[in-house]
Amino acid sequence: MNLDELAERILQGDRRALARAITLVESSREDHRAQATELLDRLRPHHREALRIGLSGTPGVGKSTFVEAFGCMLTAKGLKVAVLAVDPSSARSGGSILGDKTRMERLSRDRNAFIRPSPSQSHLGGVARRTREAVALCEAAGFDVILIETVGVGQSETVVAEMSDLFLLLLAPAGGDELQGVKRGIMEMADLILVNKADGDLKPAAIRTCADYAGALRLLRKRPQDPEGFPKAMTVSAVQEEGLEEAWAEMQKLVEWRKAHSFWARNRAAQARHWFDQEVRHALLAKLETTEARAAMDELAARVAEGSLSPAAAARDLLAELDKDDRAA
Amino acid sequence: MNLDELAERILQGDRRALARAITLVESSREDHRAQATELLDRLRPHHREALRIGLSGTPGVGKSTFVEAFGCMLTAKGLKVAVLAVDPSSARSGGSILGDKTRMERLSRDRNAFIRPSPSQSHLGGVARRTREAVALCEAAGFDVILIETVGVGQSETVVAEMSDLFLLLLAPAGGDELQGVKRGIMEMADLILVNKADGDLKPAAIRTCADYAGALRLLRKRPQDPEGFPKAMTVSAVQEEGLEEAWAEMQKLVEWRKAHSFWARNRAAQARHWFDQEVRHALLAKLETTEARAAMDELAARVAEGSLSPAAAARDLLAELDKDDRAA
Repeated sequence: MNLDELAERILQGDRRALARAITLVESSREDHRAQATELLDRLRPHHREALRIGLSGTPGVGKSTFVEAFGCMLTAKGLKVAVLAVDPSSARSGGSILGDKTRMERLSRDRNAFIRPSPSQSHLGGVARRTREAVALCEAAGFDVILIETVGVGQSETVVAEMSDLFLLLLAPAGGDELQGVKRGIMEMADLILVNKADGDLKPAAIRTCADYAGALRLLRKRPQDPEGFPKAMTVSAVQEEGLEEAWAEMQKLVEWRKAHSFWARNRAAQARHWFDQEVRHALLAKLETTEARAAMDELAARVAEGSLSPAAAARDLLAELDKDDRAA
Repeated sequence: MNLDELAERILQGDRRALARAITLVESSREDHRAQATELLDRLRPHHREALRIGLSGTPGVGKSTFVEAFGCMLTAKGLKVAVLAVDPSSARSGGSILGDKTRMERLSRDRNAFIRPSPSQSHLGGVARRTREAVALCEAAGFDVILIETVGVGQSETVVAEMSDLFLLLLAPAGGDELQGVKRGIMEMADLILVNKADGDLKPAAIRTCADYAGALRLLRKRPQDPEGFPKAMTVSAVQEEGLEEAWAEMQKLVEWRKAHSFWARNRAAQARHWFDQEVRHALLAKLETTEARAAMDELAARVAEGSLSPAAAARDLLAELDKDDRAA
């Protein structure tokens, strides 16, 4: 399939073409990278936009169950839902999010849903880049809502928040002092905190935890992009499918307010600028990954290690070498 | 003064020339950078080596008092001592380490001592780079011991450890549960934990805290670069100048063992390689700092923000632009 055909099929919402295109953006082969960039450029003029929802939750909070229940509720409304994941640990752990697909049985069989596991890259930067290109592909394929989930390892919440319109934090009911376990920085990113498992024995604890987080949210500095009452904490039960409609209503309220007050567009523009900066840094540093650059670096590094050349002088010499190669190319 | 003369004077141990050379390496002007690299290259063949001691301690542990007492003890032994600082916050806070110089009155008047405040840069990377070049200059100037101190903001301990032969962690007496306040990663970097203020009322608490840390250190995995009994926790009193000789004796024991077992040289080689990598990355990214690059980036960023160009395509176009400039240069 050539790029024109692939682009055409994606625009028609062909899921197989979408999967294939995502595989293309995930590839690190240089010719694939060039094709992926070309493909994204062809899809761009169509300006299709989805609601990008970032979702973070540590293992055990019931994230898969939530995504399944929430996703099925949305598809029942006639919305097309894509689920992507940012999980830098998946390469090592053997793919924790891959497992999620089998745990989202109902959603994965839904014709209006598309689930894609995290690319198996060990660098968060690589995962982030591929995921946001996958987001762009899903938008072009006509999806209405894109859920980008992460288990919250290291910096992954920040990365997900940087590619989302809304950021949800999914939590489990907890003892009072466990509130400390959620880092302030993560709290500050959240638009909506959802305390899951508000069912059965855990319901009272969930309500208490929710009140604690609501109190903690009120102590945070007010953000310009929030209407009165946001960020907000709510209880949900993914298992019993309770609170999901209410959560969705709050999300829509927030989206409408932000669109009306131009924060939506401003946020997307700022995010695009951020990604551009990241792409540029990445592309510059990629110059070091060629066989020639590696050989030159190893040779200079040996001289630095033995003490006959300073790190700064060695760097200067390497850059001169790279520039010479560029000129010859 | 030309570079030859500056190099000559530094090799003679001229402190004014040393101060001037450090100012040169701290400059971000491009011609100064080239001169600084050239100067370091001229000094390198003399292969003078000092003992580089990294020292971390949060505000209030008595770091300045310790450095003053420890430094004066070393100069009394006929050793030449340089004190440098890594403090990325100094630019904002108005220079917390600059204040230290006045708090080290005795040492700053000592003819065998040289104290240099942290360069006023807000980026840790910039401070790190200048500090290790200052270390190289102090070595060339014939200093025997270089103390590199940090207040331990963010990643600064790691940065200091990466340019040190030994790493000391200075702590204050604490209640048992405060032990948690020292991050495991910092503990794992320490060769020697010194619990300060083992005097007067605080002496029992200091002894108890020291025992707690000794216990915690025994739980860490054994590192190949340590002889039996290291890393070690000891009490000191900087105010009463107690325990300093003992601490110095332990440091020397460790240094001798590491030199005899080749860990010293191996560590220095690995550090040099690490710095080289950092320099290369820094130099590559510096290509973005030129006026032309900034102008091109701003123009592309505007198109990315408005959605008419993808981040990846914009990055590709910028790189092509930079390469063209390189070729024309």
